[in-house]
Amino acid sequence: MKGVLYLIPCPIAEDTAVSDVTPTANQRVIDSLDYFIVENIRSARRFLSKSGYAKSIDQARFVELNEHTTSPTEIAKMVEPLLKGVSGGVISEAGVPAVADPGQAVVELCHKHDIRVVPLVGPSSILMAVMASGLSGQSFAFNGYLPIKEPERSKTIKRLESRAKTERQSQLFIEAPYRNIKLLEQMIKTLQPETRLCIACDITSASEYIRTATVAQWRKNTMPDIQKRPTIFIIG
Amino acid sequence: MKGVLYLIPCPIAEDTAVSDVTPTANQRVIDSLDYFIVENIRSARRFLSKSGYAKSIDQARFVELNEHTTSPTEIAKMVEPLLKGVSGGVISEAGVPAVADPGQAVVELCHKHDIRVVPLVGPSSILMAVMASGLSGQSFAFNGYLPIKEPERSKTIKRLESRAKTERQSQLFIEAPYRNIKLLEQMIKTLQPETRLCIACDITSASEYIRTATVAQWRKNTMPDIQKRPTIFIIG
Repeated sequence: MKGVLYLIPCPIAEDTAVSDVTPTANQRVIDSLDYFIVENIRSARRFLSKSGYAKSIDQARFVELNEHTTSPTEIAKMVEPLLKGVSGGVISEAGVPAVADPGQAVVELCHKHDIRVVPLVGPSSILMAVMASGLSGQSFAFNGYLPIKEPERSKTIKRLESRAKTERQSQLFIEAPYRNIKLLEQMIKTLQPETRLCIACDITSASEYIRTATVAQWRKNTMPDIQKRPTIFIIG
Repeated sequence: MKGVLYLIPCPIAEDTAVSDVTPTANQRVIDSLDYFIVENIRSARRFLSKSGYAKSIDQARFVELNEHTTSPTEIAKMVEPLLKGVSGGVISEAGVPAVADPGQAVVELCHKHDIRVVPLVGPSSILMAVMASGLSGQSFAFNGYLPIKEPERSKTIKRLESRAKTERQSQLFIEAPYRNIKLLEQMIKTLQPETRLCIACDITSASEYIRTATVAQWRKNTMPDIQKRPTIFIIG
């Protein structure tokens, strides 16, 4: 019998305990595993230790899945234990695996091999931003990072604004946190005054800040200091 | 001081315990509240009772927010207690509020009144389907329900297929569960053979079924019996 691939969420914010943002039931799954496919071994070990992993972390097997391990051969090797009946867990640096984070390549190969994939519940800043934005949750799109170079960048912002209006689909995106303020300034300048913009920052943290207002209102308000803080932007 | 609006997820599947799919920390929030804005009062009372609500359910105040209560006056009334300093919780029938579920109207008004909105962690079939699909989680869109009538329906399926390819954006949608098989048959017929289709059914339940394959493969396989079972479809 083949193993099962579990997708194991971990906290997003440094200041939250594992039990604050994941169900206790996840721990039963984690404790049953000795094989982990992880974005970063050090963070994954720290997560297992914080979560109170019932086995010896030193006896567990870790392989890294990130931007440095993308060759089909490497991915195939990660799936080998599952084909042999060993179950495994995917753990990313923060939040849920395979959504705006590594994991997808292994999941994809598991489906090709008829290996069962089981997602567990945990914090997703994307989903929680939609929930708390007051913008449409009946139709929404996560677009990842915007292009860095102009004119592609401005064009993309305008295209997403237009799609948000014509299709009534909330448009989410992210930026490297050290470029957050620059992006925010650009949006406040570029977007139409009546367009609504949600800034959702440090989700699940004590410093969580989620605020939706029209661009006209943002122009009058004091801007939140979101520099270097993980932030989801939503145009709606 | 104004109250806080908490968005409180509940289980998706009938056969899962509250603690299986929500963090224990949510319970502290729930126990602190006496005011609930809910999709259905009976289900919300049952959820509070199952979760072990520390206060008397009969003393708590419930108002319904659903397709029958959408007038601005009704929404404004729901927000009044929050303006007076009472915190409240939004609870939908299943899963997370305000995403493919009621809640958004109240959240929107809270932002207008500068009332803090706090989303809690819980199960979302949309997010979990993306995680477990093996399709792109770097860019994805939830499109809600497809149009029921032809030719709009076929046109929408083709438009989403084309967008999934040209923009490399996974396209999610749902259908009324009793029409699931009909939709699936239509997609198998309409989509290109190389297009990948994920069927994610009964997420978090013991009967959970998540499988991604190309349309060509689905044509050869036995179809899963997804009739009347909540299902997320993803084209990628």
